[in-house]
Amino acid sequence: MKIAVCQFNPIIGDLKGNTGKILSGYMRAVNDGAELVVFSELFLCGYPPLDLVEKKEFRNAVRNAATDIASQTNHVGLIFGTITEDYEDKIGTGVYNSAVLCYDGKIQFIQNKSLIPNYDVFDEVRYFESAKDVFIHEFKGEKLGISICEDIWNDADYWKHRRYTIDPVQKLVDNGATLLINISASPYAYGKRKEKFEMLSVLTRNDKSPLVYVCAVGAQTELIFDGGSMCLNSSGKLDLLGKAFEEDYFIYDSKKKYDEIKKIESSFEEEVLNALVLGLKDYAGKTGFKKALVGLSGGIDSAVVAFIAVKALGAKNVHVVMMPSKYSSHGSVKDSGKLIEELGISSENISIQPVVDKTLEMLKDSFRGLDENITEENLQSRVRGLYLMALSNKHGYLLCTTGNKSEIATGYATLYGDMCGALAVIGDVYKTQIYKIAEFINRDKEIIPIEIIKKAPSAELRPNQTDQDSLPEYELLDKILRMYLEEQKEFEEISASIGNKEIVQKVLRLVDLNEFKRKQAAPVLRVSTKAFGYGRRFPIVQGWRK
Amino acid sequence: MKIAVCQFNPIIGDLKGNTGKILSGYMRAVNDGAELVVFSELFLCGYPPLDLVEKKEFRNAVRNAATDIASQTNHVGLIFGTITEDYEDKIGTGVYNSAVLCYDGKIQFIQNKSLIPNYDVFDEVRYFESAKDVFIHEFKGEKLGISICEDIWNDADYWKHRRYTIDPVQKLVDNGATLLINISASPYAYGKRKEKFEMLSVLTRNDKSPLVYVCAVGAQTELIFDGGSMCLNSSGKLDLLGKAFEEDYFIYDSKKKYDEIKKIESSFEEEVLNALVLGLKDYAGKTGFKKALVGLSGGIDSAVVAFIAVKALGAKNVHVVMMPSKYSSHGSVKDSGKLIEELGISSENISIQPVVDKTLEMLKDSFRGLDENITEENLQSRVRGLYLMALSNKHGYLLCTTGNKSEIATGYATLYGDMCGALAVIGDVYKTQIYKIAEFINRDKEIIPIEIIKKAPSAELRPNQTDQDSLPEYELLDKILRMYLEEQKEFEEISASIGNKEIVQKVLRLVDLNEFKRKQAAPVLRVSTKAFGYGRRFPIVQGWRK
Repeated sequence: MKIAVCQFNPIIGDLKGNTGKILSGYMRAVNDGAELVVFSELFLCGYPPLDLVEKKEFRNAVRNAATDIASQTNHVGLIFGTITEDYEDKIGTGVYNSAVLCYDGKIQFIQNKSLIPNYDVFDEVRYFESAKDVFIHEFKGEKLGISICEDIWNDADYWKHRRYTIDPVQKLVDNGATLLINISASPYAYGKRKEKFEMLSVLTRNDKSPLVYVCAVGAQTELIFDGGSMCLNSSGKLDLLGKAFEEDYFIYDSKKKYDEIKKIESSFEEEVLNALVLGLKDYAGKTGFKKALVGLSGGIDSAVVAFIAVKALGAKNVHVVMMPSKYSSHGSVKDSGKLIEELGISSENISIQPVVDKTLEMLKDSFRGLDENITEENLQSRVRGLYLMALSNKHGYLLCTTGNKSEIATGYATLYGDMCGALAVIGDVYKTQIYKIAEFINRDKEIIPIEIIKKAPSAELRPNQTDQDSLPEYELLDKILRMYLEEQKEFEEISASIGNKEIVQKVLRLVDLNEFKRKQAAPVLRVSTKAFGYGRRFPIVQGWRK
Repeated sequence: MKIAVCQFNPIIGDLKGNTGKILSGYMRAVNDGAELVVFSELFLCGYPPLDLVEKKEFRNAVRNAATDIASQTNHVGLIFGTITEDYEDKIGTGVYNSAVLCYDGKIQFIQNKSLIPNYDVFDEVRYFESAKDVFIHEFKGEKLGISICEDIWNDADYWKHRRYTIDPVQKLVDNGATLLINISASPYAYGKRKEKFEMLSVLTRNDKSPLVYVCAVGAQTELIFDGGSMCLNSSGKLDLLGKAFEEDYFIYDSKKKYDEIKKIESSFEEEVLNALVLGLKDYAGKTGFKKALVGLSGGIDSAVVAFIAVKALGAKNVHVVMMPSKYSSHGSVKDSGKLIEELGISSENISIQPVVDKTLEMLKDSFRGLDENITEENLQSRVRGLYLMALSNKHGYLLCTTGNKSEIATGYATLYGDMCGALAVIGDVYKTQIYKIAEFINRDKEIIPIEIIKKAPSAELRPNQTDQDSLPEYELLDKILRMYLEEQKEFEEISASIGNKEIVQKVLRLVDLNEFKRKQAAPVLRVSTKAFGYGRRFPIVQGWRK
């Protein structure tokens, strides 16, 4: 069968725009001789629609859009993800995450999702009920076994620990499916595309069935969908692979021989950089921002964010501001100047010192007799936030937050100061990873000045300050954080691995104590298996200590 | 049977403290001749523990604490809520939200929760599996039917629309339970205590079984648990009612006759005021803050918040700051002065004007040729935020955010400005409700100056500004918001009710567009059935419009 894979980028809730993408993709595929055209999970409403699903007007509009799309089909099949409802079901929500198959002017078949993920960033049990059963649909000589995303993530041959007792895809195979289709919207994390391929390879090989796996692409606030749709043959080999981090369209012929594709993923640096560029580009594009603003400190984080902004929006749409204080090193401004020139972006330089001094003057009665402390440091950062927000408000810039994951984890950031902004572009990237990305950016040419990469990290909020006055060396810190966050290891295991209980205790305590800051943080673009944001939920007020 | 109801206030994760509360309550009840002592849902670990449940070290510590508590029991029964695990279960989490019954030194019986709520603020499917079955446990001549919270919320006689297909409490009754026990942690919303009583009255009356319903009390960040434990006899009448918004302890004799209690709830104003006082008190107490700071604008919101802070922490622990600008009316400072005197709190007055002027001077090149707009208004609010945070940092004050629900809903608030703070004390209370609460505060004596109540609401960020320059009259606005948020009505229905499509469209659009601000807002104390925060989840980037 000739199947058109439509790996497109929807906007959540934009039914008109998404309908247009489905119809134009379908028409193109019909012209190209496809027999079946497939879009990703919940494409019609965008994924994840969150509490929009609870709105009846929204669900009705989705239903009408789906009916309208179906009415425009001919004999060529069209599968897309949408919300459906069982109006007869009087217990529970009666709402399903479904794949609908349309042809000859009607929705001919609906397969609801069986496995409803409810972990990490997934809250689907909040909205959707499980399919009561799965069914084969015969179409143009094939027995189609259609499933939705998580349905394919419970293969007994692949997983040591399974989340669910049932395996809907196995059931489709047992019922004689000759062609498996899975429509998916699986948020990106580095390493996951390779894992997905390995899982699907085991499944197709063991079940002796080809699989067309159609993935979402595009960023939806913090979640990035990386595309990389896959067509596997019944030997578990990869025949076709969709582009990563961009829209793609291609036709797969399940009867044809293909050369095996072996390269599934690029390097960490390249992948993550592309992911973040897409994340920022889509946040801006989907909210209508044309221009971005970055506060340039002279450090590596803001330099990398400025580079990402240029890739996402173009050099002419990126503006940076340097905001030195009396503690800023001469190098910081000079190095920033080199970067600005290299990137070809506009800039300005506004000292924070007069406003900091004026503020301290106004507060002097209140502060009388008290030593300088973190207050004065935070104040500098907050005056920078004040400037950045004023520039953003006045000129309509999207303000990019420049904090990295190591800082956000340990609370080494000022609430309402450097934490200001619409989107934390590198908030899921550790400091040590930022260095690697900077080196990757410089692989052919020095774009990020070497002085910025080489200098000791410093917030420059007091004389001769460095990050390591407050934090362990980043190599060690990030190692501990990665074990604690992504690998979900805990105190005893991390301590045994690091060989230093005090330092592990200190780091874990910093992470736990700073939930209150993260509650008020900008959304973080997710590129790891555990990002800060709604995939990680801890009480702000709590007493658990190890 | 004589049952001691222990309506106590746990701290999430504080296993040592919560263990102490269980043991001291148990000892007291043993001395008082109780035969069974009951604590609320997940009391040992605190509710909701959120992702702490995913930590193995945490679960192990909880298990050890439970075993330790059980080892200290004699023949008197002890029931408390805790996490248990099925280590043999290889599929899914194998983790349960359980009631354990201990006596004679051991855990003798475990009943797992059957109905796992996953809507609004509840994410329990993320952590807990459903009980495989429910069982009666015979103890001291009674057949105990033990259930946990949501288990009792699916009664077919009471609910028109049920969430779940099974009814575990009915099954316990069918299996011959002579005494029902439900341990609960059900977040407060005004009106819910009465609803709970009505539901439980139908259930006990129809099932002809008495019920001891033990509720959590205390605030856990944004969620407030109001206590109000209930003992109902087999005629569905209320025999005993626990105190609202404070810890309580009493013994219920299921064989004894009691006078029927008819008053379940106080007025809206009294209830909500008490809820907010508890919310702020527990946030401060459980995080170690002794003193609170409120920015006093001369308006009603900050006046009511200052009053709540005084009730929560005592007048000597509340400090307020007035931060006038050139747009502040003389009345604002004068009225604030009256309030400060009435409340007996400390205060200071620091003009923002010199810092605002200095900032505008620094930004003048960047702003050249552009008209004054919202930027300059936000800037004033942000300089106030700068002052408030500096005072909070320097003196260790808990900064109370003063925005009300009408403002947070419509985005009539400045991010990093008046939205600064650790806790949005009145963020779930509409402006029109704030007036009612102010009148209630003044019921015996004018505490909040009448001038503050009478003046037209204004942000005072430009000359002669009032809130109604940007928003509909609050009576109308709040009516629309209540329909949209709490009643979950949508555009067509609200428009039909209001009779003005444009105004409804404008308000709904403001609500939808301001998700980005609420993402970065302080936690909001929840007192309604739908508060901003994690019980309401909308995409920040989305295109749904009606």
